[in-house]
Amino acid sequence: MRAEFKTLASGTVTSPFGFVAGAVQSGIRSPNKLDLAILYSEVPCTAAGMFTTNAIKAAPVVLTQKHLRNKRAQAIVVNSGYANACTGKQGIADAEEMARAVADKLGIAPQNVLVASTGVIGTSLPMDRVRAGIDKVTLTKEGGHELAEAIMTTDTFTKEVALHVEAELGTFILGGVAKGAGMIHPNLATMLCFLTTDATVDATFLQSALHTAADSSFNMVTVDGDTSPSDTVVLLANGLAGTKTINAGNGEVFQKALEEVCLRLAECIATDGEGATKLIKVIVEGAVTEAEARKAARTIASSPLVKSAMHGNDPNWGRVLAALGRSGAKVDEGKLTLYLNSFCVTKKGQPVPFNKQEVSNSLDSKEISLKLELNLGRGKATAWGCDLSEEYVTINSAYTS
Amino acid sequence: MRAEFKTLASGTVTSPFGFVAGAVQSGIRSPNKLDLAILYSEVPCTAAGMFTTNAIKAAPVVLTQKHLRNKRAQAIVVNSGYANACTGKQGIADAEEMARAVADKLGIAPQNVLVASTGVIGTSLPMDRVRAGIDKVTLTKEGGHELAEAIMTTDTFTKEVALHVEAELGTFILGGVAKGAGMIHPNLATMLCFLTTDATVDATFLQSALHTAADSSFNMVTVDGDTSPSDTVVLLANGLAGTKTINAGNGEVFQKALEEVCLRLAECIATDGEGATKLIKVIVEGAVTEAEARKAARTIASSPLVKSAMHGNDPNWGRVLAALGRSGAKVDEGKLTLYLNSFCVTKKGQPVPFNKQEVSNSLDSKEISLKLELNLGRGKATAWGCDLSEEYVTINSAYTS
Repeated sequence: MRAEFKTLASGTVTSPFGFVAGAVQSGIRSPNKLDLAILYSEVPCTAAGMFTTNAIKAAPVVLTQKHLRNKRAQAIVVNSGYANACTGKQGIADAEEMARAVADKLGIAPQNVLVASTGVIGTSLPMDRVRAGIDKVTLTKEGGHELAEAIMTTDTFTKEVALHVEAELGTFILGGVAKGAGMIHPNLATMLCFLTTDATVDATFLQSALHTAADSSFNMVTVDGDTSPSDTVVLLANGLAGTKTINAGNGEVFQKALEEVCLRLAECIATDGEGATKLIKVIVEGAVTEAEARKAARTIASSPLVKSAMHGNDPNWGRVLAALGRSGAKVDEGKLTLYLNSFCVTKKGQPVPFNKQEVSNSLDSKEISLKLELNLGRGKATAWGCDLSEEYVTINSAYTS
Repeated sequence: MRAEFKTLASGTVTSPFGFVAGAVQSGIRSPNKLDLAILYSEVPCTAAGMFTTNAIKAAPVVLTQKHLRNKRAQAIVVNSGYANACTGKQGIADAEEMARAVADKLGIAPQNVLVASTGVIGTSLPMDRVRAGIDKVTLTKEGGHELAEAIMTTDTFTKEVALHVEAELGTFILGGVAKGAGMIHPNLATMLCFLTTDATVDATFLQSALHTAADSSFNMVTVDGDTSPSDTVVLLANGLAGTKTINAGNGEVFQKALEEVCLRLAECIATDGEGATKLIKVIVEGAVTEAEARKAARTIASSPLVKSAMHGNDPNWGRVLAALGRSGAKVDEGKLTLYLNSFCVTKKGQPVPFNKQEVSNSLDSKEISLKLELNLGRGKATAWGCDLSEEYVTINSAYTS
């Protein structure tokens, strides 16, 4: 494998060739906020998707899963403000109408339009505003940035990235946008992510590549342990860069590039957790299996007590072990070693004396790491989380009000 | 089954005949706080216990499980301040020494002494203070109240109860104390509970009765989803009331009384969740199985987003369904009905319009209920939780400091 990845300045979901987007302030819920956007590819794409594992699925998720059955798509319409979830039969009808309106506007089949919504659950969409908004959207090459802004809810910054990849089977671009903040959790909780590429990718490989990339990125990001009925990750490949067809046999570079894009978006999501003041990176090594390493890392990163301690720069490492202990991963207390940043606080199960003030000072940082060596096997994983602040509660006790 | 339960005024763990207790300020961690206590029965008891499911177990849990193998015990020694967890070999030696010191003081076998510790994880006990404290404890009939106080950490009130039970096979008293607050979760997270009775109870039945009672009480209480290496529930029966021997064949009244005692302590624990301002009762009916009803109720009661919304009196009912959806319980969205207090907000999957201000006013209360009808089967369960307040974060970002 020989390849070079270059991060594009101002890279976004419309950076790959042939993609355009646009957004408007339709007033769906708040005035003066971009809240409705369309992403469009000049030609039909092979398409892959991953969706919430929540048993309650928002209407747009149900519709988009249906539209993706043929692994083709050409446009995405997305709104923020209301999630169109728990909205009964009206919700399905509204999602269908959004796809139809966009299809009419663009002169494509409704089946080729995917739909996503994020926001408050349980309230129907104001369809008059949605319809008027769809009418008004203008699609441009720079429109990816507007789309990134339009999907924000409690996010405090847009999450966008694009990589330029030079590989043996051709040069291509991979771009993406995401929204995260509250409810981010393993299994794609309340997350929207749209990924695009101008590479030519086999549809079956596209789906498996997306799964693999999501497993080590989005599914390892956790903010509060809650999941949402709306989580959607979609990847469109339009082939306009003219690469050879990428498949399971030659897809190693594409896979790496996709993982890199997903990882960068995932880190943005963790950093922007609701009320977060710092990014917490939890590294677990030496687990019996990789699956157990993932479980352990995610459980620690989502523990409210660990998150609160890190918020206060409190080297209360027992909470890390308590979270580890309930994760379901196999643990031998006499073998485990834990580091808070570079400070070893317990080694092979024996506490190591440390200067509390010194460790606390080191935790007073925008990015900290907790590293556990279980010394049982070769499974390893990294999870990203954020601290739990008073601000999280303030934001979430008045979200619909 | 004919029986009468009477709540004893000022009832506590020493209300049953033959139990005494006492506590001292040993200065284990803070000055001027009762922090070390002993509970003693004049005669050896049949004994049952339930312990943390966390893979990391505190030294006192390891020792107490060992001492309970013969289903006999006569005393319990407990301290707050440090949990003696993640303390390596020294921790086990310290727990053994606590049992030995109490055995010497009381003239009984160390095997008959159970040990429990609660507090900060990862720091060894100051054994000089523990030893001196054990020496100083004076045991009295009123000492249950001191013990209830000595086991408090971030608890804001003592949790004590005793029931006087008149049944066909004799009159007896059941008493108990508990500590809860932070980290309370299904599977007995960071909870200490000591239960006593002067009934004569078969040891095998005692253990099964304790399991059944805990399943519908302590295991349905959740504060923050974290669990602790120290969770311990112990039940001692000394037989001094002279009842007939209670066993699986005739134990219905005892079982009910035990459940009642456990329920009352569990409700106290939920009410006293760290920073809690209200008790949230989650009732799930019509689940496929009782196990699924429990999963659903507990997941909802521990959702940070549900807890934050309830803190702000925000009728954001979509969050309740989102938590339900990730609980693992089978759900048919088109069949489910949800009430916030007495207000139906969604009926058979269709949102029901409601006056937001009116429902919000009703949520502005010390005790609220969320009731879900899944309409799939006959499984039902109730979980107790509390809201998530800014105060929770403040408490937990500076616990060891």
